Amino acid sequence: MRHIITILLQNEAGALSRVANLFSTRAYNIESLAVAPTLDASVSKLTLVTTGDDLVIGQLTSQLRKLVDVVSADDVTKTRQAERELLLIKLQMTAANMATVKALISATDGHTLSVSSTEIVAEVISDEASISAFLTNISKHAEIIEAVRSGTLAI
Amino acid sequence: MRHIITILLQNEAGALSRVANLFSTRAYNIESLAVAPTLDASVSKLTLVTTGDDLVIGQLTSQLRKLVDVVSADDVTKTRQAERELLLIKLQMTAANMATVKALISATDGHTLSVSSTEIVAEVISDEASISAFLTNISKHAEIIEAVRSGTLAI
Repeated sequence: MRHIITILLQNEAGALSRVANLFSTRAYNIESLAVAPTLDASVSKLTLVTTGDDLVIGQLTSQLRKLVDVVSADDVTKTRQAERELLLIKLQMTAANMATVKALISATDGHTLSVSSTEIVAEVISDEASISAFLTNISKHAEIIEAVRSGTLAI
Repeated sequence: MRHIITILLQNEAGALSRVANLFSTRAYNIESLAVAPTLDASVSKLTLVTTGDDLVIGQLTSQLRKLVDVVSADDVTKTRQAERELLLIKLQMTAANMATVKALISATDGHTLSVSSTEIVAEVISDEASISAFLTNISKHAEIIEAVRSGTLAI
């Protein structure tokens, strides 16, 4: 099962390595991770997605709380109100496919950031499953030159 | 100076710890970091923001390339076409302030995800500076209950 864990972490040397290490030494994969500043300059907020059964992820979350520099760690999988991810994508296509590609971007509530005769740079904000589906879909009509994802955020 | 580095990383145990470790042992701060899957299931893409002069960041990028499991590492600060960040925010306000808060969200091209009589959950997509400015601005009209940022993405 997929779990979303949010962590408040003191900005100290080695703090992020210790979090990543806890997962790798227990052979748990970090599917996605977003680390960004908070209004408190001494603390960063991490949003981490991993997979495992409830019991083991519960133990992992407890172990996270015991790490130096971890202020809090919470499994928000069941309590979150919204889950969103940002995708930036650069696409190359024939002129004939341009309209279809633009329509697919609009259908996913995406926005075109820049466009030339054969290239589009766009942003799409949706949940993880919809972004993965969008990527599969768009690759039938355009070549994906570059794709960058933020990983899941939850609130 | 602020630098954006993108890294392609093999999904192997310890790979992320080694990247984080390279920064902490050299006392370089990771301001933000996004780690997410790519179309190749064996590789993740990292977007990392740090601060330092060009020469030192150049050396750091070279050292990243020498790490086990790092496929590529590039400083894209000067070559990027677009830079975007996702913010999820939960706000509490008086009924009187609701209209102002909604207007500020719209003015930053944000979207309201859910709304009650005194609470709004919204998403805002912009660059890092605009998101920081939005947070400062909105805090004058509403209480920030929760804010989650993705960190900068560049393409």
